Amino acid sequence: MAKKNAFYAQSGGVTAVINASACGVIETARKNKDKMGKVYAGRNGIIGALTEDLIDTTKESAKSIAALRYTPSGAFGSCRYKLKGLEQNKREYERLIEVFEAHNIGYFFYNGGGDSADTCHKVSQISEAMGYPIQAIHVPKTVDNDLPITDNCPGFGSVAKYVAVSIREAAFDVASMAKTSTKIFVLEVMGRHAGWIAAAGGLAAEKDGDAPHIILFPEVQFDEAKFLAKVDNSVKKYGYCALVVSEGVRNKEGQFLAEAGGKDAFGHAQLGGVAPVIAELIKSNLGYKYHWAVADYLQRAARHIASKTDVEQAYAVGKAAVQFALKGKNAVMPAIVRKSSKPYKWAIGEADLSKVANVEKFMPENFITKDGFHITQKCREYLEPLIRGEDYPPYKNGLPQYVTLKNEAVKKKLKTFTI
Amino acid sequence: MAKKNAFYAQSGGVTAVINASACGVIETARKNKDKMGKVYAGRNGIIGALTEDLIDTTKESAKSIAALRYTPSGAFGSCRYKLKGLEQNKREYERLIEVFEAHNIGYFFYNGGGDSADTCHKVSQISEAMGYPIQAIHVPKTVDNDLPITDNCPGFGSVAKYVAVSIREAAFDVASMAKTSTKIFVLEVMGRHAGWIAAAGGLAAEKDGDAPHIILFPEVQFDEAKFLAKVDNSVKKYGYCALVVSEGVRNKEGQFLAEAGGKDAFGHAQLGGVAPVIAELIKSNLGYKYHWAVADYLQRAARHIASKTDVEQAYAVGKAAVQFALKGKNAVMPAIVRKSSKPYKWAIGEADLSKVANVEKFMPENFITKDGFHITQKCREYLEPLIRGEDYPPYKNGLPQYVTLKNEAVKKKLKTFTI
Repeated sequence: MAKKNAFYAQSGGVTAVINASACGVIETARKNKDKMGKVYAGRNGIIGALTEDLIDTTKESAKSIAALRYTPSGAFGSCRYKLKGLEQNKREYERLIEVFEAHNIGYFFYNGGGDSADTCHKVSQISEAMGYPIQAIHVPKTVDNDLPITDNCPGFGSVAKYVAVSIREAAFDVASMAKTSTKIFVLEVMGRHAGWIAAAGGLAAEKDGDAPHIILFPEVQFDEAKFLAKVDNSVKKYGYCALVVSEGVRNKEGQFLAEAGGKDAFGHAQLGGVAPVIAELIKSNLGYKYHWAVADYLQRAARHIASKTDVEQAYAVGKAAVQFALKGKNAVMPAIVRKSSKPYKWAIGEADLSKVANVEKFMPENFITKDGFHITQKCREYLEPLIRGEDYPPYKNGLPQYVTLKNEAVKKKLKTFTI
Repeated sequence: MAKKNAFYAQSGGVTAVINASACGVIETARKNKDKMGKVYAGRNGIIGALTEDLIDTTKESAKSIAALRYTPSGAFGSCRYKLKGLEQNKREYERLIEVFEAHNIGYFFYNGGGDSADTCHKVSQISEAMGYPIQAIHVPKTVDNDLPITDNCPGFGSVAKYVAVSIREAAFDVASMAKTSTKIFVLEVMGRHAGWIAAAGGLAAEKDGDAPHIILFPEVQFDEAKFLAKVDNSVKKYGYCALVVSEGVRNKEGQFLAEAGGKDAFGHAQLGGVAPVIAELIKSNLGYKYHWAVADYLQRAARHIASKTDVEQAYAVGKAAVQFALKGKNAVMPAIVRKSSKPYKWAIGEADLSKVANVEKFMPENFITKDGFHITQKCREYLEPLIRGEDYPPYKNGLPQYVTLKNEAVKKKLKTFTI
């Protein structure tokens, strides 16, 4: 059988290290040129496959591909586009197969979170049903750290490190200012459903009195009175209070606090995130001067402070995906398996996509302290290795030198398809 | 004459490198033990002098003092406390002299911005008037970069680097997502009066199409129609638009945009900063999906990504302050003198405090492009050397190892003073 080409696409919110996975896929494919053909990337994720907008990665130099390892974001473009179920949307799945067939693609590498694991699984099913052989391998990626089976998700460790470093630095600042000025600092971080990212902020608190003093998790219902007492206690005891707040914190009614804050004069929902709501709540009840920050994309794009562990794992799952494909595997995902925490040892294992798709992993209960405001020692032991190590990008004139690829299109062979 | 002790205090908002100046002062004083006595630091800035709450820095190990070079924030505490004029507030100036006399202090090193330069100047005047000799040396520090005479201010270069790196990273992220999702990213940065910090974001735009596409300066009156056209043009041309917005942007009426946004349901002023106001303005007029971030203290505390140039200059002004004192100088400030931009060469010069106090340096007109939305080549040439070089702190278990000093108090000799 003639060797088949591969298709690779990035899906959903990008991370500081998803390109390291791309680098792992492409470099490993290039090392196996005798067995695997070209790697085509989908421009803007799966949309590139549907619209036959493929990028020929063989046009990129070895140097450019190597630079993906230290370049944040999605080098080929990503998208938020979830394919519906096979029954409702056979047309799109059939189109994928049509495109794959037209370009002699036999490997489908899909780099994303839970939704893309599901899509990947469905592609392997439709391939079987339609009789066109596709090996579908999912490459895990999500800052939310909510994929099952894998011990952690590439992308998470770097956000975790960014948040832990940032709250430590900002708290040092607030501690300096607290005597006459700011006593409260609120850092809002990502996490609509799971508190993994907020939890990572807790790593900065290595000994009593260290910031953050309070973490608010989406998993813990917000109790205003208990919260305010805790803030006040921190200010009285340490002179200030530094908080990491997950964007997904909800009140008793189940509403996001960020949205429960009210409307502005024009009837718009409160524009700010949850950080200003929490800060103002403290001010109006306790009178303390505050500052707040919303990290937003900065946290997941912060390749300059990426975790070395995370970069290595992101590369490893990309590499393993190609190796799995060459071994004939299908409908699987390389998973990170923790062998031990002290010393930290990990290896690449294999997860069935049927067990990954549509399962969300939340923080275990014993990772959150009983009062609901911090992480436990058990959680620290889990998180700490994931932020370990620095892996600095190269700099020129004070700025990190990230690569922008040429992204040359493969000539189309099919009719236009409307999505 | 018996050798005199020195007093050192940190003033106003702290920075990523103000402790590097403290390190320069203390290490240089220690090297000149034959000529200069102990360095006492004010706990929480000048308040420590007024309340006779002095920290004995000789109790700190050489290793701890060396660690100040890479520790952000103010290690002795800072304060926002401006001494009034000599006439209105003779009581406080006299108290300073009283404390200095009680502790045999002959050198006053005040590390801060414009206000503290003014205080420092007044201390030298009152010393003369009261006949107790004090050499008052101001050590420049401000992220706002608004001190006159000195080419730039220690603390600014590191914020500048943080902002330039952050907008580059976030823009890479947005570019990946723009096809189906976020097209607008707004980063709010500090700068109530001067646009230096926002301008630094412009360094990330090295070639056509690079982010940021738009910078909003406090110096440029906000023109909504022109602004929206520029945003729309950027999205149509590049697929997305990344913006750096100074917190101090004002509308035609001279109001801060952040405050002109309206009130919420409880009658509070809009809680968010200017970033969400700008983002929502774009959404409601052009329909583009947005994300925004407010860096707040993260930007000025970000020692993990400090500029090497900035760290070196912060240390150098601290060192020079002690050298000036030992040369018998008074009412002066070490200033950074630019010898050339290409290659970048600088030296330490000397500025009269009478010329520094109460003078604010704004962005020159020829640093902002004619349309008001970006920086000129001239501005790039000025800014670029200031962010050059990386100077990473040491890490342990994934986190930067910043020092917390013992800060042991000097025994009080005087009666309590109420401020």
